[in-house]
Amino acid sequence: MIFRQLFEPESSTYTYLFGNRETGEALLIDPVLEMVERDLEAVQELGLALAYTLETHIHADHVTSACRLRSLTGCKVAYPSMDDLPCADIGVSEMAPLSMGAISFHPLYTPGHTETHHCYLVDVPGAIRVFTGDALLIDGCGRTDFQGGDSAALYRSIHDKLFSLPADTLVFPAHDYQQRRVSTVAQERDRNARLGSGRSLADFQRIMSELDLPYPKRIDVAVPANRLCGDCPEEDYIRLQEPEGPSMQG
Amino acid sequence: MIFRQLFEPESSTYTYLFGNRETGEALLIDPVLEMVERDLEAVQELGLALAYTLETHIHADHVTSACRLRSLTGCKVAYPSMDDLPCADIGVSEMAPLSMGAISFHPLYTPGHTETHHCYLVDVPGAIRVFTGDALLIDGCGRTDFQGGDSAALYRSIHDKLFSLPADTLVFPAHDYQQRRVSTVAQERDRNARLGSGRSLADFQRIMSELDLPYPKRIDVAVPANRLCGDCPEEDYIRLQEPEGPSMQG
Repeated sequence: MIFRQLFEPESSTYTYLFGNRETGEALLIDPVLEMVERDLEAVQELGLALAYTLETHIHADHVTSACRLRSLTGCKVAYPSMDDLPCADIGVSEMAPLSMGAISFHPLYTPGHTETHHCYLVDVPGAIRVFTGDALLIDGCGRTDFQGGDSAALYRSIHDKLFSLPADTLVFPAHDYQQRRVSTVAQERDRNARLGSGRSLADFQRIMSELDLPYPKRIDVAVPANRLCGDCPEEDYIRLQEPEGPSMQG
Repeated sequence: MIFRQLFEPESSTYTYLFGNRETGEALLIDPVLEMVERDLEAVQELGLALAYTLETHIHADHVTSACRLRSLTGCKVAYPSMDDLPCADIGVSEMAPLSMGAISFHPLYTPGHTETHHCYLVDVPGAIRVFTGDALLIDGCGRTDFQGGDSAALYRSIHDKLFSLPADTLVFPAHDYQQRRVSTVAQERDRNARLGSGRSLADFQRIMSELDLPYPKRIDVAVPANRLCGDCPEEDYIRLQEPEGPSMQG
């Protein structure tokens, strides 16, 4: 198995690359439109072919490169099935994980940052990882004031679905604004300033209600674009529907 | 493969447990004397037998449980061969890694905190880890003013041996005093306040010379005890030499 953590500095987004040497396939979690070239180069350098993109949620701070990557490589675009996006090839849910050979991406339904947010658990022997999107961040969490956000729901998602994972589960968030890259479930349970040891639901709701954050700069562009899997040009989409692209079948 | 990160709060020491399901063996990196019971319970709960203890260096802040564990389980005690300890069963070096079935512990000679300090690289597919002892800590490093410490040597060890590892290598230190548990090579290269991006050797030497740390509380007890692999009672040692203990042969 191959694993890479990639960083996009404009929105401080981490994109995660998984590769399966046995099948020759690669998967990207939360790829960013501006980084298509870098991501494809990384996949190619590893001698792999991009097979899937997988989103944790409909992002408000950047546009996904999902459908751009599909145009360029014929990969399949996976989204939480709850998002009900016509542009997606695959809908994932807790009952419908995504597998790339022996590597399985188990969705965990974790509403609160957005209404349909999912984390992904990847349990490879000796290295269990959870990709927490904008639900759980290192010593923080995503905001809960847009897109059906709900601080009580986020508290429950994090406590019930993430803090109940094994202590050594590696936590890989979708963002960090201080260049931190990884944490563990034990670390966040112990010391997350908003959600860790000793923080009640009431504490968390108060903290979130007092954040006083600015209106998200890119939300009015990013959310509609992401509901179109990154807003592919129509000609790309039409090309993909044509019979000469058998690898594009969803 | 099984992996656990265990914490001892008195000296803020992380002990690392590796298990190999195929051989039924377990290994502990830097076990602490006061935590013998917890560590043996963890090994037993996993259905494993302790096969090895492995030390990064002669600790000054806690006493190892190495020879106590050997008395209790018949495990083998591994130390850097440079330490030249008569109490050790196995001497490891860059040329002599330690293997537990398919899991290999590759020593990296990293002097600077102590003269004979070693880190251990464990490269399992898709999850490369380095155990950095007291050389590289999260956003910090070990002190360099005792036991042959040398800040120029530590700077070179970290830059040449650790920062040259793949960016996604997980960094597991021997201590953290803020309950942080894991970092990566990329994170430390980017943001380690003493050694990261933009810090020259001269900067580092100045920082280390200005730390003004107190005399280590336990050094006068811990170092001599650790040079005896934790200062086993003589009767234990004698018992181990007797022919009825065939599993104790070094």
